[in-house]
Amino acid sequence: MIPKVELALNAAGRMVPAMVNGRPQIPYIGVGKYQPRARKAASPVRTAASYPENGDKRIADLETALRKCGLRDGMVISSHHHLRDGDSVALMALQTAARMGVKDLMWFPSASFPSQKDAISLMESGTIHHIEGSMNGPLGDYCTQGKMRGMGVLRSHGGRWQAIQDGEVHIDVAVVAAPTADSFGNADGTHGKSACGLLGFALADSIYADQVIVVTDNLVPFPCIPSQIQGNNVDFVVQVDSIGDPTRIVSGTTQITRSPDRLRIAEFVARFLREAGIMRNGFSFQAGSGGIALAFVEYLKNMMLEGGVKARFVRGGSTKYLVELLEKGLTDYILDGQTFDLDAVRSLAKDPRHVATSPFTSYNYHGKGNFASMVDAVVLGATEVDVKFNGNVVTHSDGRLLHGIGGWQNCLAAGCTILAVPSFRDRIPAIVDEVTTLTGPGELIDVVVTERGIAINPSRQDLLDAVKGSRLPIRPIQDIKAEVERICGGKPAKPTLSERPVAVVKWVDGTVLDTVWQVS
Amino acid sequence: MIPKVELALNAAGRMVPAMVNGRPQIPYIGVGKYQPRARKAASPVRTAASYPENGDKRIADLETALRKCGLRDGMVISSHHHLRDGDSVALMALQTAARMGVKDLMWFPSASFPSQKDAISLMESGTIHHIEGSMNGPLGDYCTQGKMRGMGVLRSHGGRWQAIQDGEVHIDVAVVAAPTADSFGNADGTHGKSACGLLGFALADSIYADQVIVVTDNLVPFPCIPSQIQGNNVDFVVQVDSIGDPTRIVSGTTQITRSPDRLRIAEFVARFLREAGIMRNGFSFQAGSGGIALAFVEYLKNMMLEGGVKARFVRGGSTKYLVELLEKGLTDYILDGQTFDLDAVRSLAKDPRHVATSPFTSYNYHGKGNFASMVDAVVLGATEVDVKFNGNVVTHSDGRLLHGIGGWQNCLAAGCTILAVPSFRDRIPAIVDEVTTLTGPGELIDVVVTERGIAINPSRQDLLDAVKGSRLPIRPIQDIKAEVERICGGKPAKPTLSERPVAVVKWVDGTVLDTVWQVS
Repeated sequence: MIPKVELALNAAGRMVPAMVNGRPQIPYIGVGKYQPRARKAASPVRTAASYPENGDKRIADLETALRKCGLRDGMVISSHHHLRDGDSVALMALQTAARMGVKDLMWFPSASFPSQKDAISLMESGTIHHIEGSMNGPLGDYCTQGKMRGMGVLRSHGGRWQAIQDGEVHIDVAVVAAPTADSFGNADGTHGKSACGLLGFALADSIYADQVIVVTDNLVPFPCIPSQIQGNNVDFVVQVDSIGDPTRIVSGTTQITRSPDRLRIAEFVARFLREAGIMRNGFSFQAGSGGIALAFVEYLKNMMLEGGVKARFVRGGSTKYLVELLEKGLTDYILDGQTFDLDAVRSLAKDPRHVATSPFTSYNYHGKGNFASMVDAVVLGATEVDVKFNGNVVTHSDGRLLHGIGGWQNCLAAGCTILAVPSFRDRIPAIVDEVTTLTGPGELIDVVVTERGIAINPSRQDLLDAVKGSRLPIRPIQDIKAEVERICGGKPAKPTLSERPVAVVKWVDGTVLDTVWQVS
Repeated sequence: MIPKVELALNAAGRMVPAMVNGRPQIPYIGVGKYQPRARKAASPVRTAASYPENGDKRIADLETALRKCGLRDGMVISSHHHLRDGDSVALMALQTAARMGVKDLMWFPSASFPSQKDAISLMESGTIHHIEGSMNGPLGDYCTQGKMRGMGVLRSHGGRWQAIQDGEVHIDVAVVAAPTADSFGNADGTHGKSACGLLGFALADSIYADQVIVVTDNLVPFPCIPSQIQGNNVDFVVQVDSIGDPTRIVSGTTQITRSPDRLRIAEFVARFLREAGIMRNGFSFQAGSGGIALAFVEYLKNMMLEGGVKARFVRGGSTKYLVELLEKGLTDYILDGQTFDLDAVRSLAKDPRHVATSPFTSYNYHGKGNFASMVDAVVLGATEVDVKFNGNVVTHSDGRLLHGIGGWQNCLAAGCTILAVPSFRDRIPAIVDEVTTLTGPGELIDVVVTERGIAINPSRQDLLDAVKGSRLPIRPIQDIKAEVERICGGKPAKPTLSERPVAVVKWVDGTVLDTVWQVS
């Protein structure tokens, strides 16, 4: 279905398509090398004369709104994923488009989730042409099976902002699920029965899209305060009974790992930060919401208490563990990108030190700097890491695309980037000769922490020196890899990949870092 | 110095220049008639690779910063006026440019003040070519004397955003005075020895300018929280000893008028809102910071207490009188555009119900609506109002340009627009046959309140009906005018104006509403 594609070799040694979904591409040329030379994209100038004087932009239903937006074949429709696996609005919009008989849409979610797997039938029926955005689970699998008519384009959170801002993706209609909104379109995520915390992933959509629809199940009188989405960018407001399933929007409980191996990894990471001198007064860090990351925060908290150390800020994805740091006075601020549990939502709603950020402030590489490079240490996961410290987060060793990039690529800009990974999963080694899909260049990955030891990138002599003489199990990455292969009975089996690209991984600057190939 | 200019008759019957400072103009065609058909302007795409990884954008001094920004002859340099008559930064930047030998700058302040009158010598010496922006006092006077090399362009706060957003004014270098900032350029006005409250007037500059310099006298460690200016839009941060004279930044005390006539006006306005049924639960209003407006707020407060009425929101410019409403529970929110006294600064800094807005949310006519049209009633001043209810706020009857527009034009969009004006000042009637300079079309001005009676625009039959039977002194505007002329001994003397335009008044949509003529 996808015509034969011309490939080019990029600076990471990867073959990448020269053209993706009809747009010429720039192959990755190295970290910090690409120099953009254009002005930003911009939405159309509107006039208040075209909008209701009393500010009431409510409209009967989503179909009427989409019709008024002029939705038609081939357009780009966007959605955000702050409601995560509980979101109802993105599918609601796409299914409405299907009922309207609209075809060949490009769906541009900030991320898609397993609960949205019905999008597959919309691809089969022709309503959706293809998806550009993270595809977690079944949609990614569908893509690697070669069934999508267009190519998947995987971008980081910052890369998505960059692509919109730089005009690489023009959004025709943005559909913004809003836990709270007023009739003018001011919208927020901290209140309402479907509260999800932030709405930052929809911010670029609201600023740059031609048309913006806010869909809410909690309409409040103007003004909706606070509001992360400004009504001055919104065309229509649609009230619905429910924007999602609250039990799957935020988990309510986020669990620390109980696996002894993973606890060991978490403890190593915390000890590494302490021994390397990174954990000091005024420092900053970011960790994700996985079981290891949460355990790491707990270990670090205790070390901070012991050492009398206070952070200047911590970055979310926030959970009750970060909130506890804030409330115990162990950090001045949480700079948050998304909220993962109800404690974090409550904290964001009430504590001015728990600050909403956006991919613009946090991650956009095509701004005048961003917050990510000012974070002292970041703790991330990976599906694979190779002996050159290259990381993969999107595919498994069998080549299947099962995860999005999230903020992972953007976070690599931190002062010290740590991948905290079990050395194998289901008897498949995570440390490999060469990652299946390159998602992050090894030159930006400083430390790999496994339950069997800690490998420091040889380019970071400063870190090697800093922990010299400590009792941490510092080992060459090849050593750890060899040990793991002995345990697992060898290297992972090479996946059977076709020569047909089905998706690309963009680097933070919009260049093409790698290709995901059809799994045959 | 200004070449002979071709004039056109606009829809308000005013002769306006077809070309202003080399740019073709659209004459005003009526309220809500002009349909823009372009995309917004946009700043250049940058890359984080060009900015310090640790986020530290500090640079030695303003001259180095201006040099790095590539400041050169003919460029546009902008500043904001949240420090009002106490600002030191705008002149500091312009005088630095003079020392650098730069010529023919267009200075684009959000407003200029008497303390900046030294800009006159920079116009004489050639550093400044002309000013586009409100010119309060001596600079406006200089303009009407015909001494400026280019034409003055007067815009409302919303019109300034519109002009920047629509690409009518391209800012090369924005200089943002910041009472608090971090080294990344995040900046805020609520804290620091020079705290001025908001920084919203600089927001468009920070987003759209090619280069942005933040100048602060209170550097805090990253992150500066809260921050109204985002460091991701900032190129350089300059530390100085002082950005201004705090005693003239905010007054500390804002005085209610003691004049019995003016108190009477204030009371009439408050009673009008009550009798017309506008003062009801959930209503909203805006009033300025003048003596009459403050007295009006006091009268209204007492009527609200008596009537058990609570507002949904009040709009600032904020003062201690609005803060009192908030703290007494008489309004849910203050939606603030600028802070006029120290009580208001303190309230904005600590009370989440006291909300910072910007000209984008409040006033930009070329957005998808704005807050101004959602306000139930607004109380404004004027230098003149004529029998067709047209208003003038920029010139006096002698033709001299002495005031800026501020948010005045934007506020006319409110549900009920009230001009509260003494019927004469210094024996010069304020109600005239035809305003000297048309700043607001009469069709948007609903009520004129003087100490001698209240005139309702005949087009607002609903308001005439609403107050029928009340004890308010409702009178035809011609009656009040005739009485005032008897007292003052006739109409105001006609100014002696030349046929040479020296400035234009833009309407909120960027079209040209009227011309200010050289006073001969």
